Amino acid sequence: MKPIKVGLLGLGTVGTGVVRIVEGHQEDLQRQTGSAIEIVKILVQDKTKSRSITVDPDKLTENAWDVINNSEIDVIVEVMGGIETTKEHILTALNNGKHIVTANKDLMAMHGPEILAKAAEKGCDVLYEASVAGGIPIIRALVEGFSSDRITKIMGIVNGTTNYILTKMSQEGAAYADVLKEAQQLGYAEADPTSDVEGLDAARKMTILSTLGFHANVALGDVEVKGISSVSKEDIQYGKKLGYEVKLLGIAENHDGHISVSVQPTMVKNTHPLASVNGVFNAVYVYGEAVGETMFYGPGAGELPTATSVVADLVAVVRNLKLGVNGRTVLAPYKEKKLKTDEQIASKNFILLHVEDKAGVLAQITQIFAQHEVSLESVFQHPNAHNPKAEIIIITHDANQASMKNVLKQFESMDVIHSIKSLYRVEG
Amino acid sequence: MKPIKVGLLGLGTVGTGVVRIVEGHQEDLQRQTGSAIEIVKILVQDKTKSRSITVDPDKLTENAWDVINNSEIDVIVEVMGGIETTKEHILTALNNGKHIVTANKDLMAMHGPEILAKAAEKGCDVLYEASVAGGIPIIRALVEGFSSDRITKIMGIVNGTTNYILTKMSQEGAAYADVLKEAQQLGYAEADPTSDVEGLDAARKMTILSTLGFHANVALGDVEVKGISSVSKEDIQYGKKLGYEVKLLGIAENHDGHISVSVQPTMVKNTHPLASVNGVFNAVYVYGEAVGETMFYGPGAGELPTATSVVADLVAVVRNLKLGVNGRTVLAPYKEKKLKTDEQIASKNFILLHVEDKAGVLAQITQIFAQHEVSLESVFQHPNAHNPKAEIIIITHDANQASMKNVLKQFESMDVIHSIKSLYRVEG
Repeated sequence: MKPIKVGLLGLGTVGTGVVRIVEGHQEDLQRQTGSAIEIVKILVQDKTKSRSITVDPDKLTENAWDVINNSEIDVIVEVMGGIETTKEHILTALNNGKHIVTANKDLMAMHGPEILAKAAEKGCDVLYEASVAGGIPIIRALVEGFSSDRITKIMGIVNGTTNYILTKMSQEGAAYADVLKEAQQLGYAEADPTSDVEGLDAARKMTILSTLGFHANVALGDVEVKGISSVSKEDIQYGKKLGYEVKLLGIAENHDGHISVSVQPTMVKNTHPLASVNGVFNAVYVYGEAVGETMFYGPGAGELPTATSVVADLVAVVRNLKLGVNGRTVLAPYKEKKLKTDEQIASKNFILLHVEDKAGVLAQITQIFAQHEVSLESVFQHPNAHNPKAEIIIITHDANQASMKNVLKQFESMDVIHSIKSLYRVEG
Repeated sequence: MKPIKVGLLGLGTVGTGVVRIVEGHQEDLQRQTGSAIEIVKILVQDKTKSRSITVDPDKLTENAWDVINNSEIDVIVEVMGGIETTKEHILTALNNGKHIVTANKDLMAMHGPEILAKAAEKGCDVLYEASVAGGIPIIRALVEGFSSDRITKIMGIVNGTTNYILTKMSQEGAAYADVLKEAQQLGYAEADPTSDVEGLDAARKMTILSTLGFHANVALGDVEVKGISSVSKEDIQYGKKLGYEVKLLGIAENHDGHISVSVQPTMVKNTHPLASVNGVFNAVYVYGEAVGETMFYGPGAGELPTATSVVADLVAVVRNLKLGVNGRTVLAPYKEKKLKTDEQIASKNFILLHVEDKAGVLAQITQIFAQHEVSLESVFQHPNAHNPKAEIIIITHDANQASMKNVLKQFESMDVIHSIKSLYRVEG
């Protein structure tokens, strides 16, 4: 078989890893696919920039169309990021009959259906394993490993930056702002960290995972998102005392076709495997009706881990080329999307209240939970030495979101409750 | 597309699960594959036996050839176990052009190469995800997820029975014999538990995983096997005190094409994710040169988890049928198998010695380690109140197996050493 020609869009961290793996593992890749794989053109922002790898300067271009419209290229590997312009590039490449491997979660979360429809029309592959959880082959697990099962819940730590920050806050008792600064200095967080810390990055990944797991077109707007910027070191310490770790979890649930997807800081029981996933590692829990609980753990980002997934997709494209079946392996979502109402979303909750330190307050509070049929698992109260308010921590049993909202609304109108300090979902 | 006809060999635990999933998820399976899947013939030992599911009695047969030679059947699902007779059945079925899905680790570990060669010759699929780690899609991860990487180490808890026993021994301080009895009563261990507790079952699974991960034909005889029947509750308690859990680990390593595969009770550092895999759960750690460390966790056995993997393979066969590419996706091992010598196998070690309680003994012992260039991480000595011997626990740094053997041989000849009580590999 003739060598497969690849065009690379982007030569940043992941792009560099892709070049390293394709060149370094050439012999294995030939064995795996039956043909040589050659990167023939690479889009860069600046041809003159110095790089950690040696690349033939003739292969570099600053013009995307040199890659997209290059007739000798079979497969485009897109690792440059971006959304609208990148979408146009990908759609044109598909119109040119090129197969696509992408690590772009933003693109796939926002425009996945349109891109996959174009791919199906053109008989092209679009693979995107690297878009979620870096080196963990979680998309393959969902699409192939559990093809026989009905997945009811996907719960994941899918953002390494926030997991690094929360791990540090937990292990060192440090404050959010300090750890964020340190993470920025170490390169684990961007100069503008909003997309990571406010949960948007995780939401995009959960959009992709829930669409694949539940066979319904979940959109980014369907995901309820809350980030970690309001997580205090006190919350983390209170959680630890009660046996919980705070983790930013993406949680997608599916009960009889009714779906909810959220990203939020969550109190995870410390006996649950997700509680001990630390630092920049990612992990995805998958619950299936038949299989029960499974977990996939690994590096969520980084040059070589992410490039491993990109090149595994490239191998899959080349194998499909050899078999002549490109574009025929994608399963379009076939289920109607029905989102859960607040009444249908249930979880345990962790609530920290600052209240007037006087008799009868706790009774009033528990009475309100009872009115809304929220039953309580445990209640902890202790007076605060420094001021005339007491702190109450309440952990509920499973309660639906509508009832919880009603409880909180009533709390807000009560003079004896000074503030609803924190509210977390509880898992595990 | 016309319905795909399946013949089922075996209607025990897993077979029952397969029937449940194929019937219960029929609509989803049709969406996934584009065609109905129908189980048309089932081999059973006794047609009159009462069962937990309702099966059309006309589908049952006590004659394997009614299934294997049945011309309407496209795919044979083999979940009856057995080796030599089953091999003949499978080979005949392949000669008849039937695709095979099997959960049979014994068969694949012993005769995998012969069966896969026949399948390639006949253009048939042979898929066996369920043969290792029940519901965990670990074979897909190795074959597809990490197709771009060089796997250097696979380390797994792949036998639920022994993990259940070791977990109980650890958590309750119970003795091996007592927990084994309990496990037998609960159905977690067989009446004859040899294959599980002596590590043979795990060895078979490691044969399969290392063959796939390292692209070399690892044979069962290449695996060094030690079971858990000699693990004492004292060893477990000593391990815990020093921060280790005893786990039966399958460990396959590959350095520059030199391979070692073993199954042995191992002291796993309690901060390593494998240390907290408890009960009948399985987990497989995979280290790749590029991806780094990943872990796959889930149920290692059971009716529905194992059936999930079997039916996922069935879905893959049907998808291949639809694409017309059966028998073309298997990658035969392409690397020469070079087994490591004792000099090339290195690990940390945990050694418990009973020694004469007198001055100078420790110096003699450490001197012998030094002679063989084994350096020590830590040494603990405490006198035993009940008799005139002391106990010494030594944890070495990475030491090669040849040196360790020499050290132990010298220990055996020393009068001051009463016994080499235990020796464990150390990981994590």
